[in-house]
Amino acid sequence: MRKGKIYVVSGPSGVGKGTIVRKLIEDYDNIALSVSATTRSPRTGEVDKVHYFFITKDEFTEIINKDGFIEYAEYCGNYYGTPKAAVYEKLEQGIDVILEIEVQGGIQVMEKFPEACGIFILPPSMAVLEKRLRGRQSEDEETIQKRLKTAKEELSKVSMYDCFVVNGPIEKAVEDVAEIILKNRE
Amino acid sequence: MRKGKIYVVSGPSGVGKGTIVRKLIEDYDNIALSVSATTRSPRTGEVDKVHYFFITKDEFTEIINKDGFIEYAEYCGNYYGTPKAAVYEKLEQGIDVILEIEVQGGIQVMEKFPEACGIFILPPSMAVLEKRLRGRQSEDEETIQKRLKTAKEELSKVSMYDCFVVNGPIEKAVEDVAEIILKNRE
Repeated sequence: MRKGKIYVVSGPSGVGKGTIVRKLIEDYDNIALSVSATTRSPRTGEVDKVHYFFITKDEFTEIINKDGFIEYAEYCGNYYGTPKAAVYEKLEQGIDVILEIEVQGGIQVMEKFPEACGIFILPPSMAVLEKRLRGRQSEDEETIQKRLKTAKEELSKVSMYDCFVVNGPIEKAVEDVAEIILKNRE
Repeated sequence: MRKGKIYVVSGPSGVGKGTIVRKLIEDYDNIALSVSATTRSPRTGEVDKVHYFFITKDEFTEIINKDGFIEYAEYCGNYYGTPKAAVYEKLEQGIDVILEIEVQGGIQVMEKFPEACGIFILPPSMAVLEKRLRGRQSEDEETIQKRLKTAKEELSKVSMYDCFVVNGPIEKAVEDVAEIILKNRE
């Protein structure tokens, strides 16, 4: 049986990669989203074990010590990581697994798993990215400026990835990502 | 009367930016392509004064000395530059002018003309970019490897640009670029 493939979906904060991958797993078969662990606080509407495993810094450190993460990274003061066990299980079942992770962690994964396919999501423009970051309204000006600076640094890593998708109209971006995955199955 | 706007269209060698901008000026009104001067040899099918002004290095140096370029740059051993006069004339007539230039020159222009809009064209994937570079067949392996390395360096400058377009199906890429230009006219 065909084994699943790991897809690393990254892009700057606010680019909408979360929306894309969630629509993708709704619309297509045999694609699953790996649920990450994080030490950051849930945003409005985010559900524990669905969007993230929301855990404490102590719990996070314990998993690191047991070598239980595919990757983990610190980002804007919080920790994010991808637990190994669930991913391996799905690959064995022939399910493609999407790791929606920030760029620093994504590059780590592609270095450890050269067979993984890296998909970088870009905003249609820097203006749209800034608007999306501001629209989120969960952060103050200083945090937004920090995120914009981080976004530019992240964009500069784009050539470390294999495929590029611009998130203009969301349906088109989902189709573009799906096309990459379906072509790899042929 | 509305003045024209400068659009800097850049992207790695082989990404197809030339094809996009030529289709763009065919399909849309009041968009003109600035013709660059270059010291490189014409490729098959390239016509002097249409695709480039093919000039000698001495002629190129003379224009530099007269401050007659909006920008110029050395690239893979050849010189490329954008003559000023023709661009200014078109802007005055309300025509948007596309400068199709490589990344190094594009960034120069955007620094000198902050009102210019930078559009960065990305390939759908690194694999496609490599295929396109190989398909061109006008270069040997060493040159291709050099261009691939240059392409990655160029991609890392993507966040210096304002808008991002992936060149998958050509018609879609042309529409995406046109949409950016038409929105700016509103």
